[in-house]
Amino acid sequence: MKPLVFQTDFGLVDGAVSAMYGVAYCVSPELKIHDLTHDITPYSVWEASYRLIQTISYWPEETVFVSVVDPGVGSDRKSVVAKTNSGKYIVTPDNGTLTHIIRLDGIREVREIDERVNRLPNSGESYTFYGRDVYAYTGARLASGAIDFDGVGPKLDPASLVRLPITEPVLEGRAVRGTIDVLDVRFGSLWTNIPRELFLKTGAQYGEKLSITIQNDTRTVYRNIITFARSFAEVYVGEALAYVNSLDCMAVAINQGSFARAYNIGTGNSWQIRIEPFRGF
Amino acid sequence: MKPLVFQTDFGLVDGAVSAMYGVAYCVSPELKIHDLTHDITPYSVWEASYRLIQTISYWPEETVFVSVVDPGVGSDRKSVVAKTNSGKYIVTPDNGTLTHIIRLDGIREVREIDERVNRLPNSGESYTFYGRDVYAYTGARLASGAIDFDGVGPKLDPASLVRLPITEPVLEGRAVRGTIDVLDVRFGSLWTNIPRELFLKTGAQYGEKLSITIQNDTRTVYRNIITFARSFAEVYVGEALAYVNSLDCMAVAINQGSFARAYNIGTGNSWQIRIEPFRGF
Amino acid sequence: MKPLVFQTDFGLVDGAVSAMYGVAYCVSPELKIHDLTHDITPYSVWEASYRLIQTISYWPEETVFVSVVDPGVGSDRKSVVAKTNSGKYIVTPDNGTLTHIIRLDGIREVREIDERVNRLPNSGESYTFYGRDVYAYTGARLASGAIDFDGVGPKLDPASLVRLPITEPVLEGRAVRGTIDVLDVRFGSLWTNIPRELFLKTGAQYGEKLSITIQNDTRTVYRNIITFARSFAEVYVGEALAYVNSLDCMAVAINQGSFARAYNIGTGNSWQIRIEPFRGF
Repeated sequence: MKPLVFQTDFGLVDGAVSAMYGVAYCVSPELKIHDLTHDITPYSVWEASYRLIQTISYWPEETVFVSVVDPGVGSDRKSVVAKTNSGKYIVTPDNGTLTHIIRLDGIREVREIDERVNRLPNSGESYTFYGRDVYAYTGARLASGAIDFDGVGPKLDPASLVRLPITEPVLEGRAVRGTIDVLDVRFGSLWTNIPRELFLKTGAQYGEKLSITIQNDTRTVYRNIITFARSFAEVYVGEALAYVNSLDCMAVAINQGSFARAYNIGTGNSWQIRIEPFRGF
Repeated sequence: MKPLVFQTDFGLVDGAVSAMYGVAYCVSPELKIHDLTHDITPYSVWEASYRLIQTISYWPEETVFVSVVDPGVGSDRKSVVAKTNSGKYIVTPDNGTLTHIIRLDGIREVREIDERVNRLPNSGESYTFYGRDVYAYTGARLASGAIDFDGVGPKLDPASLVRLPITEPVLEGRAVRGTIDVLDVRFGSLWTNIPRELFLKTGAQYGEKLSITIQNDTRTVYRNIITFARSFAEVYVGEALAYVNSLDCMAVAINQGSFARAYNIGTGNSWQIRIEPFRGF
Repeated sequence: MKPLVFQTDFGLVDGAVSAMYGVAYCVSPELKIHDLTHDITPYSVWEASYRLIQTISYWPEETVFVSVVDPGVGSDRKSVVAKTNSGKYIVTPDNGTLTHIIRLDGIREVREIDERVNRLPNSGESYTFYGRDVYAYTGARLASGAIDFDGVGPKLDPASLVRLPITEPVLEGRAVRGTIDVLDVRFGSLWTNIPRELFLKTGAQYGEKLSITIQNDTRTVYRNIITFARSFAEVYVGEALAYVNSLDCMAVAINQGSFARAYNIGTGNSWQIRIEPFRGF
């Protein structure tokens, strides 16, 4: 029995997620089912992709993740199960949800779900509930051992998987430039795509000051000098800091405040951040 | 050990739901407990009833549901356990929560909870926490086998159960008229009480245009022509559509937008919808 | 295998809580993990303390609670595991989270987490994710039996634990005076620190009228006469009442309304409430 972990943009206000649980328990009452999150911004494939890479490395090998953020449901987008290099399974529409996994973990093998086999019996008329009838059902069958990976359906070429465009972070002289990938919503922190290792090539040291510039396209939204801290406790309450987040990337926050709300900052490729060690005017 | 599923209007912000879990685990640490939702609109018995019928068919036979939306707590409303025709148990105050179950599944037998037996020991002084002390406790005892259905308490006549008023959908010439039962909150879709089968008697076909009229009492709130689609992917992003929802009833939505918010639409018997195939002016 | 229960201020919108689950399942796939709440107001140690005392008595002995509300993460605040008089374990930063437990349950023994042993392997570089790498990991090891209580680390003197200031409720003639400790957020009720037993020394009886005064520092925010009721059902919809809450303390609410929102009431030591039986002008 492999752990089964669900992620959706369905929210928990109605019964949609519970129906997925029920379908899975009908496959096997022995399953252990958990949640990644069900509060993905509706239709945000980017966020779904990001939350997966944020989380899967902490779960045991063989864990089966089911991710249902599916704006193209009912179109000809494929339904797939990917096996990652680190040995996890991801059940998902092939719509870009695997973007960060491909980049940071890697896909060992991918198979298209054969719906003639892997679809809840008697669910033929519902065109809108793939999450429940195909993805939860297939994930539960794989996690419980009712099918093995071969039983999902035919192999696909991993190179054919849909990917969202990603902007690479770059070193520019003594500065590093990247994008704001996602918000740590609850604490209002900005999570960038700049890995700690790349950032450290600027020569920055903990405790030093950094010059931060944030732009939305061509408009400068924020420009200031803040501390590069090991943790929030090293700056005053209300003070801004740069730190290394749980994905080992650079992040910017206000200690006990919300950086995102303070400066009205959003996410995506149009939101650029530049960080440079500050060594006096 | 039967699965145990909790539904409340308590929210998850404080410890109330966790206390229910704890009480159940004290009954048996082997229980498998899950959630339907805890975000029922406070005191909305209608919504509680609707979420149950939306979900229970996907769970295994013998699953024990505990639903606590209980505006009359402390009054003389009865506490009951119903066994449905499909073989599920529902532990609930008798306040209309069973309305949709009675109508769409049916009650095989119902028993009143005998609180002299089925109440958390030493909880006598708390008059406000039936959810924890009676419903969670009784549900856990039933799910774990500490009591069987007879052990709940004396039989009641299913005909005596409280029902909320329901307006029946009707065919009117080439149109069908019904009410807006509930919102798919997260996606802003309207879920009507019009079954697909009744709707199809209008002769409508997938891909055709439908004339939709929505009224709040006598005021017309929306009147337009939209597509009857198999899925959201068949219309443009931002375009409205009618479709068959996961309950096999007619629903109206905007692809990647919120129909409910766009036109300020609510739910209940005063919200009427009329759908007619559109075959030109 | 002891039950493992998580509480944080992380919210459920991103993958942080799921990563804690994953870390725990890597320690042992047999663990049973549950949530108290993840919606503690960010950085509110007081609320974390309150939700623990609200809940732990309903869980079985030996349950391991992990509470991560940690505004001082990265400072020299200690990480501890307390064993309560009632036999539960609490894994938490030593920052006041144990305040109500100390007062209302009591600490039998407390140990400081030895991070050389009790820290997720290869997590050395992350200074911000104690919740996952130390607290969830240590909690999982304790719950699964990988370590016993001695294995947590060296003993501390319970008297050295950080406590938040608490104002004691007092009897003043025929009245009782206390503070508003917390809101029952969803239903807008005020939960005071006045125990039922202390309140009853005023001679008040169920069904009688009470004169209520609420002050924020020196400003009177509410003064009115309401019913002391066993339950909400004893007053009209929209009527205010005083009642005994699930913690056996006095609470004030509006039946099917929000008292907190109606009168803009907050929580903490500056919010005082005075209750006196009303026996005519």
